Amino acid sequence: MIIEANNPDLYSWVQVPDRSGFPIQNLPFGVFKTKNLSPRCGVAIGEKILDLHRVYDVGLLNDSGLRTNHFAKNTLNDFIGLGREAGRGIRNRLSYLLNEQNAELRDRADRDTFLVDQTAAEMLMPIEVKNYTDFYSSEQHAFNVGSMFRDPDNALLPNWKHIPVGYHGRASSIIVSGNPIKRPKGQVMPEGADMPVFGPSRLLDFELEMAFITCKENGLGNSISTAAADDHIFGFVLFNDWSARDIQKWEYVPLGPFLAKNFASSVSPWIVTLDALEPFRIAGDTQSPRVLPYLQFQGEKNFDIDLEVFIQPESGEVTRVSTSNFKYMYWNVNQQLAHHSVNGCNIEVGDMYASGTISGPTADSYGSMLELSWRGTKPLKMKGGGERKFIQDGDTVIMRGTAERNGVRIGFGEVSTKVLPAD
Amino acid sequence: MIIEANNPDLYSWVQVPDRSGFPIQNLPFGVFKTKNLSPRCGVAIGEKILDLHRVYDVGLLNDSGLRTNHFAKNTLNDFIGLGREAGRGIRNRLSYLLNEQNAELRDRADRDTFLVDQTAAEMLMPIEVKNYTDFYSSEQHAFNVGSMFRDPDNALLPNWKHIPVGYHGRASSIIVSGNPIKRPKGQVMPEGADMPVFGPSRLLDFELEMAFITCKENGLGNSISTAAADDHIFGFVLFNDWSARDIQKWEYVPLGPFLAKNFASSVSPWIVTLDALEPFRIAGDTQSPRVLPYLQFQGEKNFDIDLEVFIQPESGEVTRVSTSNFKYMYWNVNQQLAHHSVNGCNIEVGDMYASGTISGPTADSYGSMLELSWRGTKPLKMKGGGERKFIQDGDTVIMRGTAERNGVRIGFGEVSTKVLPAD
Repeated sequence: MIIEANNPDLYSWVQVPDRSGFPIQNLPFGVFKTKNLSPRCGVAIGEKILDLHRVYDVGLLNDSGLRTNHFAKNTLNDFIGLGREAGRGIRNRLSYLLNEQNAELRDRADRDTFLVDQTAAEMLMPIEVKNYTDFYSSEQHAFNVGSMFRDPDNALLPNWKHIPVGYHGRASSIIVSGNPIKRPKGQVMPEGADMPVFGPSRLLDFELEMAFITCKENGLGNSISTAAADDHIFGFVLFNDWSARDIQKWEYVPLGPFLAKNFASSVSPWIVTLDALEPFRIAGDTQSPRVLPYLQFQGEKNFDIDLEVFIQPESGEVTRVSTSNFKYMYWNVNQQLAHHSVNGCNIEVGDMYASGTISGPTADSYGSMLELSWRGTKPLKMKGGGERKFIQDGDTVIMRGTAERNGVRIGFGEVSTKVLPAD
Repeated sequence: MIIEANNPDLYSWVQVPDRSGFPIQNLPFGVFKTKNLSPRCGVAIGEKILDLHRVYDVGLLNDSGLRTNHFAKNTLNDFIGLGREAGRGIRNRLSYLLNEQNAELRDRADRDTFLVDQTAAEMLMPIEVKNYTDFYSSEQHAFNVGSMFRDPDNALLPNWKHIPVGYHGRASSIIVSGNPIKRPKGQVMPEGADMPVFGPSRLLDFELEMAFITCKENGLGNSISTAAADDHIFGFVLFNDWSARDIQKWEYVPLGPFLAKNFASSVSPWIVTLDALEPFRIAGDTQSPRVLPYLQFQGEKNFDIDLEVFIQPESGEVTRVSTSNFKYMYWNVNQQLAHHSVNGCNIEVGDMYASGTISGPTADSYGSMLELSWRGTKPLKMKGGGERKFIQDGDTVIMRGTAERNGVRIGFGEVSTKVLPAD
């Protein structure tokens, strides 16, 4: 698919520093506020945010088919609900407005009032999450967990290569980068004990994931094919699926993870559109055994996006603890959405679908401390001394994502979350 | 707690037939529309609905503290979000307006325009469900399932008597009584096969449950004690947790039920308030072993509510297949909410929390076909011939609930859902 706004030869009149993840080819959507501006929608460009509320108000989107100022709202739900094509039209128009060769906005005397410094803005949750599902789609992750907790010779459960396994998670506790979380408390059954004990989790972990956000309904009772799935996906964010391993171990049979996960999940604030990611499509690994017809697909459905995880101890040095890539997904997003709806389950506008932990093939590319420290048996050395088996109070966990090709860097920014002690 | 509106000696000027579940002591809230009336909120009284939109508009709620006509909306979310005390105030005021001794509404020349025949109204989803959790809190049900699928000598898993086990379900596919569902399709692994097959579920089942709806937030990071839980609960509905047993068996390890459940859940349209249920409190069974302090509670937290399930075959006779009672819950709703939030998970206004299948101690009081037919080994005889192991195309499953004491019947109405063939 050729999308004009992705052309590597475009440049903006807004200065975009070298190595910025927000060139004119990205234009991710988010929601922000400042000391003086009420919550509203914007796109990131270089070190600025273009204030879309204002862009709409002065009539610069008049020819874009938008009949209501959805950008004056404090979530993007209504805008993304217009669908892929409308979203693409707006992004193309914004690309043209920001193009160095277009004078419309560039030469306005008040043009600086359309731009907000990212450092002066507080980023808010970009959408109201309607429903949230977490998949389990990285083979290496499923293999690692199966090896640790079950049997290395039969690490994958029998259904794993037939079904993009997933489960429903908690929508209410998904928060945006920059907000701290408290270490959760809960029930744990200590090794060898007869009775559970209650207290702060001792095995707090992150999970490196990405999530897509849906922009089109199917309606209860209808399915979405793998071919049609692209039309339902607005874009992606980074997703930290916080997990309390000790709580999870005790609670999760037979109905799955619950309190081990629902205390918080953190997302990056900028939704990078599926359109902006088109140049980064790549084939996934061949699936064997062959999947059932409703899960078969045409074309390249994985994405080559570099992912990194860092731990920043309280007043300590940052250490990178993992480098992975979104391409390491056995099940792609089209298959996830086709599976989720094959029974007629209705997808809503503003749903969030997370990938599951994305673990690469090498020990330094695993997507959780559980795997990186191999259940605590191989602590990670931290820069400036110390080590980590799991996440400690005061630690900030930072995830970053970037896709790069033909000199264009499409950045996701980051999801950064500090862990506070339990009450 | 003494609530004036519950007084058994009250009578309404609206005729309430003998054995009606909607006397003046109930006043359940719902959302309805008619050929001439836009969606709006009402309370059931006898065979009528009191149109609250109109009651507000003519000023009859002026002294009730309501400053906005939340009853003009198509969900009750904003109204219930005012909290327990405000809700109680409105219910008390409505009780007074409907009281036979109060002339305010009774003697208005236009009083009939405030009342809509229930038969002329279409009931709508009473709330927009924000988050949905399903518990697994009936011991007999957990025991039955554990006996069938694992080991009768160790039917309950080790965590069951320590944790009100629950899992997140799908909010988007919760529908109101009267709407049919389609038999879901999905993956199944046939006994002895190497590869899964795809097709309509052959083991479609109901689960007899009740669900409560929350009306107060705790805020992320805060817990709700068992003592405070009552303040967060607006009321209850009947809940049919549709389940595809064959899909469930193949998909549910290790992360729990997913497509086996999320194709649909059905609820009754009238929310019976916690206030109306106060007279029906009853003690649950003693919990042993003793639960952790955060799950301990004072007072009677179970409810004595008779429950029935009927199957109506296409153009066939209705057969009652189960009689159970909400009192058969090992874990009560206060414990469920305390557990759900003990890790800081945030409860929202409009969340729905289902009980899990409510199975009584006898074989005719089990809450699912899986248990009633004991995995299909003991088919149920149907009136007028035939038998049922699971639910067939064309069957309508009907659940009813009633609490009765001192001559007062508090009814839930019914949740009735017809099963259509798969596409």
